[in-house]
Amino acid sequence: MADQHVQSGEDKRSTAIPVIRWEEPPEGPVLVLLDQTRLPAEEVELVCTDAPVLVEAIRSLAVRGAPLLGIAGAYGVALAAARGFDVDDAADALAGARPTAVNLAVGVRRAQDTYRAELAGSGDEGKAARAALAAARQLHREDAEASARMAERGLALLDELLPGGGHRILTHCNTGSLVSGGEGTAFAVALAAHRAGKLRRLWVDETRPLLQGARLTAYEAARSGMAYTLLTDNAAGSLFAAGEVDAVLIGADRIAADGSVANKVGSYPLAVLARYHHVPFVVVAPVTTVDPDTPDGAAIEVEQRAGFEVTEVSAPQVPVAGPGGGIPVAPLGTQAYNPAFDVTPPELVTAIVTEEGVVSPVTAEALAQVCARSREVTVG
Amino acid sequence: MADQHVQSGEDKRSTAIPVIRWEEPPEGPVLVLLDQTRLPAEEVELVCTDAPVLVEAIRSLAVRGAPLLGIAGAYGVALAAARGFDVDDAADALAGARPTAVNLAVGVRRAQDTYRAELAGSGDEGKAARAALAAARQLHREDAEASARMAERGLALLDELLPGGGHRILTHCNTGSLVSGGEGTAFAVALAAHRAGKLRRLWVDETRPLLQGARLTAYEAARSGMAYTLLTDNAAGSLFAAGEVDAVLIGADRIAADGSVANKVGSYPLAVLARYHHVPFVVVAPVTTVDPDTPDGAAIEVEQRAGFEVTEVSAPQVPVAGPGGGIPVAPLGTQAYNPAFDVTPPELVTAIVTEEGVVSPVTAEALAQVCARSREVTVG
Repeated sequence: MADQHVQSGEDKRSTAIPVIRWEEPPEGPVLVLLDQTRLPAEEVELVCTDAPVLVEAIRSLAVRGAPLLGIAGAYGVALAAARGFDVDDAADALAGARPTAVNLAVGVRRAQDTYRAELAGSGDEGKAARAALAAARQLHREDAEASARMAERGLALLDELLPGGGHRILTHCNTGSLVSGGEGTAFAVALAAHRAGKLRRLWVDETRPLLQGARLTAYEAARSGMAYTLLTDNAAGSLFAAGEVDAVLIGADRIAADGSVANKVGSYPLAVLARYHHVPFVVVAPVTTVDPDTPDGAAIEVEQRAGFEVTEVSAPQVPVAGPGGGIPVAPLGTQAYNPAFDVTPPELVTAIVTEEGVVSPVTAEALAQVCARSREVTVG
Repeated sequence: MADQHVQSGEDKRSTAIPVIRWEEPPEGPVLVLLDQTRLPAEEVELVCTDAPVLVEAIRSLAVRGAPLLGIAGAYGVALAAARGFDVDDAADALAGARPTAVNLAVGVRRAQDTYRAELAGSGDEGKAARAALAAARQLHREDAEASARMAERGLALLDELLPGGGHRILTHCNTGSLVSGGEGTAFAVALAAHRAGKLRRLWVDETRPLLQGARLTAYEAARSGMAYTLLTDNAAGSLFAAGEVDAVLIGADRIAADGSVANKVGSYPLAVLARYHHVPFVVVAPVTTVDPDTPDGAAIEVEQRAGFEVTEVSAPQVPVAGPGGGIPVAPLGTQAYNPAFDVTPPELVTAIVTEEGVVSPVTAEALAQVCARSREVTVG
């Protein structure tokens, strides 16, 4: 995997975590994932021998994070092809495993299109399967490169917004190596600030209900050696009020054409708090996250997840279990409202940082321009 | 206990929960508490034989909630007196068990002053102990009466603010029978709306880190038969954005003279969201919560609690335990920011509902006037 990460010339601590890996025969073809539901207690690998296992891994959040879902989806198509399963069926199942993350469908379609084109040209299924795998690997490499470029652009933006340095950055959910072929999105920017000696503290929202902040971002922050502090999501208000947050950095699961940002539930309240306290609210995401077919925030389909994620606390190391497999914390029969994402309107977003450029202020035109640059590069 | 609850003439379902009870000899004198850390899984009683046991119960949140803490503190002084311990030492330990809740100190001092006055007058320690107990019982009764009056005034305010009925109320933490000698503060208003057929839904914030919403408010809502839905604290933003919240009702742990409200962490972000969405933000608290000696929000001491409340998930029914007695969810060594409360400035509070009247708009003068009514009643 190391060769799939961008290496810069400078001396830097590697914090890359092997989150996804393709195994050739004789062990494979299989796709091996780090099971993120078991972190930070255990580092356990999950071996996907076919697409349905991967679909389940995506649904259960064993593999998660917008860019990584795209990579996983592409490998999933390659796996179905290499194993001789129906590639179109597998692609449909994979693309639909989680509705909000547009990168998943984009990655799936890219490998599927490559497979179909090769099959239509050569008529050779083996060759088409190898082409799908090459497409997945290419996406993986591109994502790592995009991470590095987002980190660079994001750090430059922070320098501009906060010239004093000593940044105290608040982040939500998990956006580092665990969601990416590289070092991630928002977390990669914080990591770049840390390496440049400009990060005073990373405030880590625990991110209920699944605690990706406590379980995963704290794990990545600890590995990277940065100063970080965990908090409950609702304690962020106190930090803003005390003037302890210089900027909010988050990722995105889908960005509509108008710049509306769907991201992990809890992002929108941070955007409102940031506005109230005149703190920059910055979204870091690759251009694949922008969906030109989604005109605005109202058109974003928000995934509603099972209530037991709220009525129970998931603790994989504990055998006691309620109906959802976790420890019940609410009375039996309690109904829960559990949207996976919320939508932040463009007027609350200070900037969207992509690998192709920074969009600020966030307008449909500026966003379309940056996305067009990406197509130019791809086409050119 | 039933005689200590206000009974109105109308037919209403009793949802009173026996949260605190004084036992005379031969079982006592002891103070028996419902251990709220074990809810909703188990209804377990905790028997306090002296003040230090009660201090520990207060610190561990086995007994909690501003008004109930005042009652418990007063009974704690009576217990020390009845058992022949040093009453002043016990009073100091009880009053200091949790720094933010002003009601605790007020309740303790009331029983202590009564004890001292009787002792100074009669010189009879037994008589003084009985006077302290009578003072605690009186406070208990008064709190039940105050609950009923807050519920009535709060419902009238809702009728005024939201003339259409069919209220969808968002609440945070736990403010019902479990925190009160009666039916509570904010929850009592929701309950009154429910009984009047005017409550469409109670949105219950789970209230991290200790999940008082999931564990306790959901338990009380289920017992009362109202329509309620649990959510993670950070999902409230989505409800506001979708127009699903008609009003926010919360309690208070301390109200400064200028109307700044200290309440469970997560209240302030709700106030900012409510303001952004033009939704009324209403605080329900007895006048004893107002501390004229705290001039403003900046003067409120906010209790910082142990980090393991965030880095571990407490599940009393599960024996597996990290250093804090819960299930670790963050990497070992993770530092956490864990303020118990936050402070909402008066300009974000639509109204403060007390048993003596409603303060709206919230100004120091209007608040002082309402508090003065209470003193008139007490003095007169």
